[in-house]
Amino acid sequence: MNYIKNPAKIEEKSFEIIQQIIDDIRPDYTFQNKLEEAIIKRAIHTTADFDYLDSLVFQQDAIAKIIHVLQNKGTIFTDTNMALSGINKRLLDELGCQYHCYVSDPETMEIAKQHGITRSMAGIKLASLKDGPKLFVLGNAPTAVYKIIEMTESGELQADAVVAVPVGFVGAAECKEEILETDIPAIVARGRKGGSNLAAAIINAILITM
Amino acid sequence: MNYIKNPAKIEEKSFEIIQQIIDDIRPDYTFQNKLEEAIIKRAIHTTADFDYLDSLVFQQDAIAKIIHVLQNKGTIFTDTNMALSGINKRLLDELGCQYHCYVSDPETMEIAKQHGITRSMAGIKLASLKDGPKLFVLGNAPTAVYKIIEMTESGELQADAVVAVPVGFVGAAECKEEILETDIPAIVARGRKGGSNLAAAIINAILITM
Repeated sequence: MNYIKNPAKIEEKSFEIIQQIIDDIRPDYTFQNKLEEAIIKRAIHTTADFDYLDSLVFQQDAIAKIIHVLQNKGTIFTDTNMALSGINKRLLDELGCQYHCYVSDPETMEIAKQHGITRSMAGIKLASLKDGPKLFVLGNAPTAVYKIIEMTESGELQADAVVAVPVGFVGAAECKEEILETDIPAIVARGRKGGSNLAAAIINAILITM
Repeated sequence: MNYIKNPAKIEEKSFEIIQQIIDDIRPDYTFQNKLEEAIIKRAIHTTADFDYLDSLVFQQDAIAKIIHVLQNKGTIFTDTNMALSGINKRLLDELGCQYHCYVSDPETMEIAKQHGITRSMAGIKLASLKDGPKLFVLGNAPTAVYKIIEMTESGELQADAVVAVPVGFVGAAECKEEILETDIPAIVARGRKGGSNLAAAIINAILITM
């Protein structure tokens, strides 16, 4: 069988096709800048879903804030192991960044049980205790997004930036609209769509392009 | 803020909403059986994408073959760490199944270099050497799907079943059409869409429902 077997060529060709399709379906579409272009195209690359041309929102200089965390040995907190698994850890290690997913941590489970909250919410509480710049990358848990908003409003948490792209039918769209009402720097996928794969892809796009 | 914080309730409510939306947008839609229903609904739950009502194809008694692998201490091979990360390992451990992702294995890299093939293809070669029932779960790499077809046709590989749902713009749709031309038991997401999250969701749906 005859098929492309060179990974670099496959990726290059994929982004060419994505641009061709955008030219075709949305000839007037323009990207605001190189970084937004990289993020939106990688979102489409990861999902084959052109809805992300319109649903991704960049609030309060979020990309610059994310780069600040990445360039200052900050910490990434994800809501799922899957999101963490998809992020390019080689590049994070080179930058000296840390990364955690607390969802299965024994301490998280204890906090969740004790307070009658989800493990995702408990994970945010745990993250708030850590020093240094903090970037939250959430593709799954609306309750984590709500917890960040609550703890920011009460002054218990300083989130440098949030990638808020939970997917789903209960609370996902709502929590994303809610964070857009705040001043928290955030990249948001409006509506029901999103996911751990998208969350990872957004971080990877920034890591590769910055 | 007032939002649902009970994970079991969130999931139950999500599946209710999914059924309501199906009733609304596709009143004549019917599922073939309980397992297909569980898989298609979990695919939608994971992606918020109702395209999967039509794009998922079940070939050659694939679900029964997958259950056979799971009930006979077989091995799951994924093409990405992300897919493996999303699969419910507690349930696999209870069943005594094994699971591997060879993509970053040193041996994989050596085979890939030596033969000038992708690491995904080398991972299939490596998997073919293992004993016992084999289930391939592929959300990312068209070259892995092609390699399975090649090695099956040459008699070098006996794949009990394949979840073939790579996402993408180069080879993804094509490799999925190709495997539908064979007799390999497969669950396939036709078209460009798919992904590691979908691949994991399909296995989880079967693990939960079987």
